[in-house]
Amino acid sequence: MAPRFLRRLFSSPKDELGLLAESLLSERGEASGVALARELLTAYSAASEEVKLQFLLQLAQRFGADLKRIDQEIKRYAAAPGPEQARELHEAAESRLQELLRRVNLAPGGTAVLVRMREDVLRNCARYPELKPVDADFRHLFVSWFNRGFLVLRPIDWSTPAAILEKIIQYEAVHEINGWSELRGRLDPADRRCFAFFHPALADEPLIFVEVALTRALPEAIAPLLAPARAPLDPKRATTAVFYSISNCQPGLQGVSFGNFLIKQVVEELRRDMPHLKTFVTLSPVPGFRQWLQRDAKAVFSASEFESFKALDRPGWHESAETARTLQPLLQRAIGTYLLEAKHSSGKPRDPVSRFHLNNGASLERVNWLGDVSPKGLREAAGFMVNYLYDLDEIEENHENFAHGGAIAASRHVRNLLRAKRPVPAKS
Amino acid sequence: MAPRFLRRLFSSPKDELGLLAESLLSERGEASGVALARELLTAYSAASEEVKLQFLLQLAQRFGADLKRIDQEIKRYAAAPGPEQARELHEAAESRLQELLRRVNLAPGGTAVLVRMREDVLRNCARYPELKPVDADFRHLFVSWFNRGFLVLRPIDWSTPAAILEKIIQYEAVHEINGWSELRGRLDPADRRCFAFFHPALADEPLIFVEVALTRALPEAIAPLLAPARAPLDPKRATTAVFYSISNCQPGLQGVSFGNFLIKQVVEELRRDMPHLKTFVTLSPVPGFRQWLQRDAKAVFSASEFESFKALDRPGWHESAETARTLQPLLQRAIGTYLLEAKHSSGKPRDPVSRFHLNNGASLERVNWLGDVSPKGLREAAGFMVNYLYDLDEIEENHENFAHGGAIAASRHVRNLLRAKRPVPAKS
Amino acid sequence: MAPRFLRRLFSSPKDELGLLAESLLSERGEASGVALARELLTAYSAASEEVKLQFLLQLAQRFGADLKRIDQEIKRYAAAPGPEQARELHEAAESRLQELLRRVNLAPGGTAVLVRMREDVLRNCARYPELKPVDADFRHLFVSWFNRGFLVLRPIDWSTPAAILEKIIQYEAVHEINGWSELRGRLDPADRRCFAFFHPALADEPLIFVEVALTRALPEAIAPLLAPARAPLDPKRATTAVFYSISNCQPGLQGVSFGNFLIKQVVEELRRDMPHLKTFVTLSPVPGFRQWLQRDAKAVFSASEFESFKALDRPGWHESAETARTLQPLLQRAIGTYLLEAKHSSGKPRDPVSRFHLNNGASLERVNWLGDVSPKGLREAAGFMVNYLYDLDEIEENHENFAHGGAIAASRHVRNLLRAKRPVPAKS
Amino acid sequence: MAPRFLRRLFSSPKDELGLLAESLLSERGEASGVALARELLTAYSAASEEVKLQFLLQLAQRFGADLKRIDQEIKRYAAAPGPEQARELHEAAESRLQELLRRVNLAPGGTAVLVRMREDVLRNCARYPELKPVDADFRHLFVSWFNRGFLVLRPIDWSTPAAILEKIIQYEAVHEINGWSELRGRLDPADRRCFAFFHPALADEPLIFVEVALTRALPEAIAPLLAPARAPLDPKRATTAVFYSISNCQPGLQGVSFGNFLIKQVVEELRRDMPHLKTFVTLSPVPGFRQWLQRDAKAVFSASEFESFKALDRPGWHESAETARTLQPLLQRAIGTYLLEAKHSSGKPRDPVSRFHLNNGASLERVNWLGDVSPKGLREAAGFMVNYLYDLDEIEENHENFAHGGAIAASRHVRNLLRAKRPVPAKS
Repeated sequence: MAPRFLRRLFSSPKDELGLLAESLLSERGEASGVALARELLTAYSAASEEVKLQFLLQLAQRFGADLKRIDQEIKRYAAAPGPEQARELHEAAESRLQELLRRVNLAPGGTAVLVRMREDVLRNCARYPELKPVDADFRHLFVSWFNRGFLVLRPIDWSTPAAILEKIIQYEAVHEINGWSELRGRLDPADRRCFAFFHPALADEPLIFVEVALTRALPEAIAPLLAPARAPLDPKRATTAVFYSISNCQPGLQGVSFGNFLIKQVVEELRRDMPHLKTFVTLSPVPGFRQWLQRDAKAVFSASEFESFKALDRPGWHESAETARTLQPLLQRAIGTYLLEAKHSSGKPRDPVSRFHLNNGASLERVNWLGDVSPKGLREAAGFMVNYLYDLDEIEENHENFAHGGAIAASRHVRNLLRAKRPVPAKS
Repeated sequence: MAPRFLRRLFSSPKDELGLLAESLLSERGEASGVALARELLTAYSAASEEVKLQFLLQLAQRFGADLKRIDQEIKRYAAAPGPEQARELHEAAESRLQELLRRVNLAPGGTAVLVRMREDVLRNCARYPELKPVDADFRHLFVSWFNRGFLVLRPIDWSTPAAILEKIIQYEAVHEINGWSELRGRLDPADRRCFAFFHPALADEPLIFVEVALTRALPEAIAPLLAPARAPLDPKRATTAVFYSISNCQPGLQGVSFGNFLIKQVVEELRRDMPHLKTFVTLSPVPGFRQWLQRDAKAVFSASEFESFKALDRPGWHESAETARTLQPLLQRAIGTYLLEAKHSSGKPRDPVSRFHLNNGASLERVNWLGDVSPKGLREAAGFMVNYLYDLDEIEENHENFAHGGAIAASRHVRNLLRAKRPVPAKS
Repeated sequence: MAPRFLRRLFSSPKDELGLLAESLLSERGEASGVALARELLTAYSAASEEVKLQFLLQLAQRFGADLKRIDQEIKRYAAAPGPEQARELHEAAESRLQELLRRVNLAPGGTAVLVRMREDVLRNCARYPELKPVDADFRHLFVSWFNRGFLVLRPIDWSTPAAILEKIIQYEAVHEINGWSELRGRLDPADRRCFAFFHPALADEPLIFVEVALTRALPEAIAPLLAPARAPLDPKRATTAVFYSISNCQPGLQGVSFGNFLIKQVVEELRRDMPHLKTFVTLSPVPGFRQWLQRDAKAVFSASEFESFKALDRPGWHESAETARTLQPLLQRAIGTYLLEAKHSSGKPRDPVSRFHLNNGASLERVNWLGDVSPKGLREAAGFMVNYLYDLDEIEENHENFAHGGAIAASRHVRNLLRAKRPVPAKS
Repeated sequence: MAPRFLRRLFSSPKDELGLLAESLLSERGEASGVALARELLTAYSAASEEVKLQFLLQLAQRFGADLKRIDQEIKRYAAAPGPEQARELHEAAESRLQELLRRVNLAPGGTAVLVRMREDVLRNCARYPELKPVDADFRHLFVSWFNRGFLVLRPIDWSTPAAILEKIIQYEAVHEINGWSELRGRLDPADRRCFAFFHPALADEPLIFVEVALTRALPEAIAPLLAPARAPLDPKRATTAVFYSISNCQPGLQGVSFGNFLIKQVVEELRRDMPHLKTFVTLSPVPGFRQWLQRDAKAVFSASEFESFKALDRPGWHESAETARTLQPLLQRAIGTYLLEAKHSSGKPRDPVSRFHLNNGASLERVNWLGDVSPKGLREAAGFMVNYLYDLDEIEENHENFAHGGAIAASRHVRNLLRAKRPVPAKS
C-alpha cells in the first residue's frame, strides 16, 4: 500500500501506476524496491493502451528534473565554475525518470518491459510531443545499458531454440522469410551463416541479426542467393562472405546502434574460422532511389529523359529486353547520381542504407542492374542493388573522411556511372 | 596511429594512454572503437603504477565537462527554464569521462579492467583529491551498469569451478577460510548454502557472496557453526537459516550496494526450496564496539566502571570465570548502549554492520555474550555477536522508520540490556 | 591399406566394406581402431543400396561364430559341465559380428550409423532371411547399450532446438502434426507437456516421445485436445494428465523397449512438479478393431448383426444420428469383445496398443464412442478411443496378473460392454 | 515385498539382497524394474562388508547360466550345427547375472554402484576364487558399456568443478599431487594441459586422465616439469607435448582399457589446436627395473658387476659423483637389457609401462639417467625414466610388429645401451 500522502496526490484508480512509480522513488522503494518494481511491471503490462498512455504522460509531467535544485546549482556554478561544480549541476539536472527507470529494472524481467515501454513512448511521440524528453531519458539509459561490452554474439542456426528462430522470421526486415522451410534454407546449408547480438537481460530476444552467404564471387542479384533448390557451396571453397540482410529486432532500442559493431565482429569471427575468406561485402537494397527519382531528380535530367522513367510504372518493364536496353544507361547514371550526389538534410548521402555502410567505413563497390526484381525491389529501387565493401584496411580512413568531409569512398566502376553515356536519341 | 594534432597535445611517450583516450573519443573512435578500446585496455593493464596514476590524473584534468557548453546551456536555461531545457543542461554538464568510459567498454573484457581502474582511483584518492570527480564518474556509471536487474544469483557449492572457489577463499572478509578443506566444510555439508551475485560481463568474478547455515535454533556463537567435525543437520529438519558471513568482492565497486538485494533474494530462494524454514537471521560481528568503548564511552560509565574495562586487554580474560562474571553485566549494558544509542556522524547508528542490517529493514534480535572468542572477535567486540532478524512482514516498516526517524527496531531482550543492573560494588 | 591376405579374400572393389570390417577385427584394428572404424562408417554411409546390402549379407556369411571353437568348447563342457565352463561356451558361441559392431562404435558418430545400419538390415530381412541372425546380433547389443540407465529424459518445448523439433514433427506416429504452427500448439500452451528419451551418443535424436495434455477430466475425444483455438487451462487447476500420443523415433531400435519406462518416469516428473495431479491416463487409438471385426468377428455375431457392420463403410455414417443410434450398442459389444476376448497368436490381447499398456500394468478404464472421427480413426477403429489408466498402486499387480495368467485389468464400465443389450430387432 | 516362493528360498534376513535380485529377474521386475533396482542399490550400498560378500557369493552360486538349457541347446547344435544354432547356444550359455546387472542399471545411479560392486568383487577374488566368473560377467558388460564410442573427452583445468578436481588429486597414481596449490600448478599454467575421459552415466567421475606439459625439447627429468616456481612457456613457442602422467581412476573398471584411446585422442586435440606441435612423447617411469635387477638379472652380469648394484641400497648414492660415475655405464646396460630383452610371462616385455606404450604403437625413444630421483623413482627404477615416442606415421606398423612378432620399436640410442662398454676394472 502506498503512503497516504501519495494516495492523495494520485486521486483516481487510474493513477495506480503513477502511485507505484512515486513509491518506488520514495524511502519505501529502497527497502522493497524489488517487490514494488515487480508490481509496477505487472500493472503496466496488464494495463489498457489508454492507461499506459496516461502513465507515460505522467512520466513527462511529474518525473522531470528538480527545477529548484537546478536553480541552486546554477548559482553555485556561477560562483565557482569548474569541473567539480559541473558534476553537481549534472546531477541536479538529471530527471527523476532516470532514477525511476533504474529502480524499475530491479525486478526480474524489468529490462524487457522497459524496452516495450519505450516502444509505447515512441509510438505516441508524434501525437504527444511532450513525450520527447521521456524518450530521450529512455534512450540515454539504453545507450549505457546496451553498451557493446555487454552484448553477446551468438550464431543462429538450425540448433537454435525455436522460440528464438520464430523471432528471426518475424523480425527479418529486408528479404521476408515465409515460414520455417524458408528459414531453414537461410540457416542450415553449409554455405550460410547467421549471427545475432543478445543482451544477457533479454535472454531470448535477439537485438539485431545479420544473414551471410558464402560465395566465390561478388553476388549480382538476390534471387540466386535465396533460391530454394540451389546446391550449397563447400565452405572451404568460398572466398567471399556476403552480408545480404541485416535487421534490427527491437523498436524500443531505436537510436542505440548495433549494426556497425555486429558487422565488424562477424567479419572477425568469419576470418578466424575461415582464414581463406578474402572479401567481405554486402548485397544491399537502395530503398530511396525511386522516391528520389520521382520527387527530386527532375533537375538532373532532360525532360525527355525524365519522361522515360514513366516506363518504370509499367508492370513487367524489366522483362522487356527493349525497355531495359533503353532504360539501363539512363538509370545507371541516375543511380550513380543518387548514390554519389543526392544529399539528406544532414548533408550526408540521401540513401539511408548508404549512410549506414559508408559511416561504418565501407565503400561503394558495385551497382547491380536488376539485382532485385521482386515487387519491392522494383518499386523502391527500380531493381538496383549495391555491394558495399568492408575492407578492414580502409575502414578507419573511409570513416574519418566520411565523417569529417563527407567524402564517399567508391570504386571506379561506381564513379563511372556518373559519366555513363546518354542514350543516343533515336533521330539523328 | 593517433592523428597528428593529438600527438602534439600529448608530447611524451608516457602520454600514450591519454592519446588513446582522446582518439577513442574522436571520430576515429567511432569507426575503430573496439580496436582502440582494446589497445587502451592492454596498455593500461601493462603500465607501471606511475604511468597509471599519471593517466588517472589526466582523466581528472582533461576529461571533465565542456565548460563553454555549460555556460551556453545555463544561458538557454535561464531564458526558458523547464524540463526540456534541463535535459540539455544535464547533457552539457556530463563529463567527457563518462563517454570515454562507455567507449572503453566496447572491447571484450573492458568492464573488468574498468573495475580495476576504479580500484586504482580509490587507492589514490586520499593523496590526490583531484581524483574525486573521476571516482564519482566511475561510480555513477557502475550504479547504472551493475543495476540489480543485470545481476545473476548463483549458488556456490562443491561443483562450482575452482577458479571461482579460490576467489571465495580470497574475498571472505568476516571469518577467514584457511584453505580448501575449510572451504569444503562451508560449502559441501547438507546444512550449508552459499550464494553469490555475478554480472554477465564479469563472468568468473563474484561481486558479493553470503554464507548460510541451516539450524534448528538461533545460533549463539560462531565457533560451533564452523567446527570442522560437526555432524551436519538434515536440511529437512532445519527451521532457521543463519547468514553468518557476507563479503563484498570487488573494491572497485565500492558504493554500489548489493548486500540488501542479495540477502532478500537468498531469503526468497531458500523459502521456495525449503518452505519449512521459518526464521531468517544473521550471526553478525560488532566491529566497532571496543573502539567506541575506549574512545567515546567514558561519559556513559562511572570512573570505576570504565576502569574495569581494562581487564579486556588482558589475554584470556574471557576464560576466567571470575573476570567474566564481573564484566558481563557491565559489558551488556555497554553493548546495549553502543547498539541503541551511539551515533555515527550521519546520525545513524555507529556500528557499520548495524547500519547495514537496520537500513535493510532487519531488527536487532539478540546480543550474544562470548559469541566470538577468536582474537579478532575479542579485539573488536569483546567477544559479542549479534543476531539481526529478517522478518519479511516487518522489513518495509522497519526500514521506513529507520530511514525517516532513525528508529531502531529491537527486541525486548536487546532493549533490556540498557537497563541491566550495575554490579553491586564489593564494599558498601 | 588392408593387408594383402585380406585383399585376396575380398576380390572385387565392392568388397571394400568387408575388407575394412576384417581389418577392424584384426590386430591392426587394435592399434588404429578409431581410424579404421571412421573409414568404414564413411564408406558405408556413402555406399549405394546395392553395396550396402552386399555388405550386410557378408556380415551374415563371414562374421558368425567360430564353429571350430564351438566344437572344442562343447567337448570341454561335456567333460566338465558347470557354470565356469558355460562361460567359455558362451564366449565361443558369440558371433564375430558382436565384436565388429563394438569396434565400429569406436569412431565418433558410430552409434548413429549402426542404428541406421540396422534399419537397413530390418528392411531387407523379409527378402533375405539369412539376415535374421545379423539382426539378432544388433538387437542384442542395442538392448545392452540403450539400457534404461543410460537414457536421459528431456522436456521438449518451444525452447528446444529446431533440429530436434523437426524430428518430433517427422516421427509423430499417432496424430499427425502438420507443420510448425501445429507443433507449437502441442508444445507451447501452458497445459501441454512433451518429454523424450535421448541417448548421449545420439545427442540430437529423440528415441521416443510422449505428448501430454493437462485436463480437469478424463478426455472423451481427441479433437478437442488438438483444437487450434482452444483456451489453455491454468496448469494449477489441472487434475489429470492425459498421454495422448506416444511415438518411437528410431526404426533401427525396434525391439528395444522404451515406452514403459518413459510413461512411468513422466508420471514421476509430473507428480513431483504438480502434486495436485491425481489421474494419469491415456487417450489411445484401437488400431486393430475394424480389421478384427471384418476378418474374425463373424462367429461372435448373428448374421444380421454382422451384416449391419457394412454401414461402417459408408462415408459419414457417424454423422447420421439414425445410423449411429442403431450401431452404437452393437459396436460397443463388439469393441468390448475385441478388447477383452480377442487374442493374438501369443495368447495376449489382439490389439497391439492394448497389449502395450496392459503389459505396463495399466488398466482398461473407459471406451469412448466416436472419440476419433478422423478418416484414420474411423477406418481403423470405427471412431473408438480407449483410456488406459496408470494407477501407480495397481501397476505392479496388474502386470503380474497379466504376465502370468493373462488377466486383463478393466473397469466395470469396460466389462459391462460385453453385456450390452443387443438392439431389439425391428419387428418385421 | 517379494513373492512367497522367493522368500522361502532365501531364508535369513541377510538374504534380502538375494531376494531383491531374484525379484528383479522375475516378472515383477519387468513392471517395477526401476523401483526394485533402486531398492537393491540402496540396500547394497548400505550393507556391511560381510553382507556384501555373502551377496556376491550368491551371485556366483545362483546366477550362473541355466545348465539344463545348455544341454538342450548343445543337442540341437549337434543336430544342426551352424551360425543360427550357434546364436541359440550363445544365448543359452549366458549367465543370469548378465541380465541381472542390466536390470540393476535401470535405476538412476545404477552404473556407479555397479562399478563399485565390481571393486568389491575384485578385492575378494583372491580369497574366494569362485568369484572369478562373477568378475568375468562384470567385465564383459563393462567392455560393452564403456565402449570408446560412449566416452567423452573433457579438458580438466582451473575452471573445472572442485568436485572433479579433488578426484584428480585423489587418483593421481604416478607423481603424487599434494594439495590444491600443487594441483593448480599442474592445470593452470599456460603450458600445461590435462584431459580426462568421462562416461555420461558417471557424470562427475573421471575414468582416466592424462597430464601434459608443453615444452621445446624432449624432457630428461620429471623434477623441472613439476617445479613450483618455473616460468611457464608461451604455448605458441612449444614444439613438444609431453605426457608425463596417466592415471586410471576406477578400480572397478579394471581390464577395460582406455589409455590407448585417450593418448591418441589427446594427440589429435592438441594437433588441431596447436598445429605447430611436432613431437608427442611421454616421460614415463620404469616401475619394474630394480625388482628385475635384484631377482632376475644375475645371469646377465658378472658377479662383481652384480655385487656393485648393492650401492643402490645406500641412501643418497646418486648424489655422490663417484658412485654415479662408476654405476652409470653398468646401469645403462642393465636398463637396456631390461627394456629390450626381459620378458613377462606373456612373452611381452617385462615392464608394464613399456608393454602399454609399445602395444599402443609407441617406440622407445630415450632412456634418461637420473630422470626421477624421488624416493619412489630411486627405489623402483634406480632413477631412470623413459621417453616413449608417439609418431602417428609409425604407430600402426609398430603395433602390428609388436603384436605379431613381439618386435620392439626402439631408437638407435636405446639399442646402443646394450652395447655400452663395461667399465674398465681398476688394475689392482
